[in-house]
Amino acid sequence: MATKLTGREIQLVARPRGLPTPADFRRATVEVREPAADEVVVRNLFMSVDPYMRGRMNEGRSYVPPFRVGEALDGASVGEVLASRSPALSVGDLVVSGRGGWREYHVASASAYERITRSVEPLSIHLGALGMPGLTAYVGLLDLAKPKAGETVFVSGAAGAVGGMVGQLAKIAGCRVVGSAGSPEKAEGVVRELGFDAAFDYRQEPPKPALERLCPEGVDVYFDNVGGEHLEAALAAMKPFGRIVACGAISAYNATSPAPGPRNLPLVIGKRLTIQGFIVSDHLDRTGAFRADVGRWLAEGKVKSRETVVNGLDQAPAAFISMLQGGNVGKMVVKLA
Amino acid sequence: MATKLTGREIQLVARPRGLPTPADFRRATVEVREPAADEVVVRNLFMSVDPYMRGRMNEGRSYVPPFRVGEALDGASVGEVLASRSPALSVGDLVVSGRGGWREYHVASASAYERITRSVEPLSIHLGALGMPGLTAYVGLLDLAKPKAGETVFVSGAAGAVGGMVGQLAKIAGCRVVGSAGSPEKAEGVVRELGFDAAFDYRQEPPKPALERLCPEGVDVYFDNVGGEHLEAALAAMKPFGRIVACGAISAYNATSPAPGPRNLPLVIGKRLTIQGFIVSDHLDRTGAFRADVGRWLAEGKVKSRETVVNGLDQAPAAFISMLQGGNVGKMVVKLA
Repeated sequence: MATKLTGREIQLVARPRGLPTPADFRRATVEVREPAADEVVVRNLFMSVDPYMRGRMNEGRSYVPPFRVGEALDGASVGEVLASRSPALSVGDLVVSGRGGWREYHVASASAYERITRSVEPLSIHLGALGMPGLTAYVGLLDLAKPKAGETVFVSGAAGAVGGMVGQLAKIAGCRVVGSAGSPEKAEGVVRELGFDAAFDYRQEPPKPALERLCPEGVDVYFDNVGGEHLEAALAAMKPFGRIVACGAISAYNATSPAPGPRNLPLVIGKRLTIQGFIVSDHLDRTGAFRADVGRWLAEGKVKSRETVVNGLDQAPAAFISMLQGGNVGKMVVKLA
Repeated sequence: MATKLTGREIQLVARPRGLPTPADFRRATVEVREPAADEVVVRNLFMSVDPYMRGRMNEGRSYVPPFRVGEALDGASVGEVLASRSPALSVGDLVVSGRGGWREYHVASASAYERITRSVEPLSIHLGALGMPGLTAYVGLLDLAKPKAGETVFVSGAAGAVGGMVGQLAKIAGCRVVGSAGSPEKAEGVVRELGFDAAFDYRQEPPKPALERLCPEGVDVYFDNVGGEHLEAALAAMKPFGRIVACGAISAYNATSPAPGPRNLPLVIGKRLTIQGFIVSDHLDRTGAFRADVGRWLAEGKVKSRETVVNGLDQAPAAFISMLQGGNVGKMVVKLA
């Protein structure tokens, strides 16, 4: 590149206590370094904000290294190659990466990117239905919970990126699907737009009576994105030999002290339940099958992708904070440039 | 039988609140009915008191029907056939049954009994190491947790009938084994007598620091007989991809209101843990393999059977209450007649 390129990025100023605030983040303009051999420069078009990022803002080891205070955040992004020193990628190629987000430009080895095409639009779908959230739903539901036709599947966070896909995949598997969401509109939306059999607004009706009302025969599979009261209610509603897949616990992510666990956890014994925690990054070998299946279902209209788009890198912290509070319908993405 | 036979039995007078008291039980003398076709009359020699019976003293559905107030309790027993109207069993045969306990004489279809021999002594071993507790340990550890050589197994209630067997089976599987028990003598005993690598007295040292001290590298398999604080400590100590087998929650059995669950349950996600509840009666198809294996290990001295024997049916309620408080070392049995 002839002149020095500069770009904006979002840095972590302080580790949030409880719900993050805008003051925990700052925008900085930094010089974009020259690519070394085998590296490319990517200009981001979209970036992802995801619940798991909240955990990375805390100190201490987790399954992903914590973000560093004073440095840029990172996460999934979709962009286009601006300069290349690798034979694997050419200028103009569209790529998705797992760590390129929260900034305008990203420089890394070409092997950190995967080329995508415009065959499916919008490109941000690679951050949602065809990206990590979609794979999370696919692996957690189909590989781990293994729902059978006729079974009842309950999913919390049903209007979110993962939950919405879980419900649609469960419908394809022939299940009855019930979801919880954080507003009447969201609950209605997953039924009307995504084909759930029923849904409830957990802010109006606690999960326990809602499940008694909507799943009087009990629940075979619970896909947990929320934890807390939802998990306790699901334990009470589970049928014998039910399977709980523990994907997330968003109700706990902003807690400043750990909340008590479900009082009825001993039910796992008498009901012979399985609770299985998982992380999508252990299952990347399923990416091919996932893309083939979900790509086909998208094309056939059997799966719908929904997203909430926020414009501009400067709005990324607000988008992230809003997502943690349920401000999104479908995948929350930030459109850059 | 020429004259009417009478026998004593223990009846439930009231559903216990919290820890049962002797007043919740009464002894009654009842007429032993004549056997119908295919039935036998059995005189009990030993009967079992087990933790799961506490749950049956509560109202409400569980995986076993509740005991009825005003009627005799039941449970596993070993006895000898006194009269037979079945070709399958002869007078003098030794038998074990799952529902013949808490009484001196029992009349039921011959198919409710299994014939045993005196090849292994004492006969009460069929209520412990070669009975339901042994099968529970065998299935829960070997079939469900699937320990691998070199892994660390933690078992709570290590001095009990199930826990002691779990630890010994884990040693045979090549694991490092740590147990918790309710007194210094019990902790020392499982190391000295059963070959555990280490044990701690949870009344002196809470499970969390004890596991940090004894399992600094973490725990691969936790066999949970206790729940509560033990489960929370185990969750904190588990290694990634660890397996928790939920067999019992004796810490909760006498609670008058449900205790909060583990505050750190969301760790199942980041650590990719599995919690699997089970009930031994779902796994009776494993009885043959279990008896062959454990019978051989007993004969080879690789497994030891320990028991605490209380004498006399009248002492059965006291034995049961004592067992719930940890008054037993190994299997708690009641010797009749």
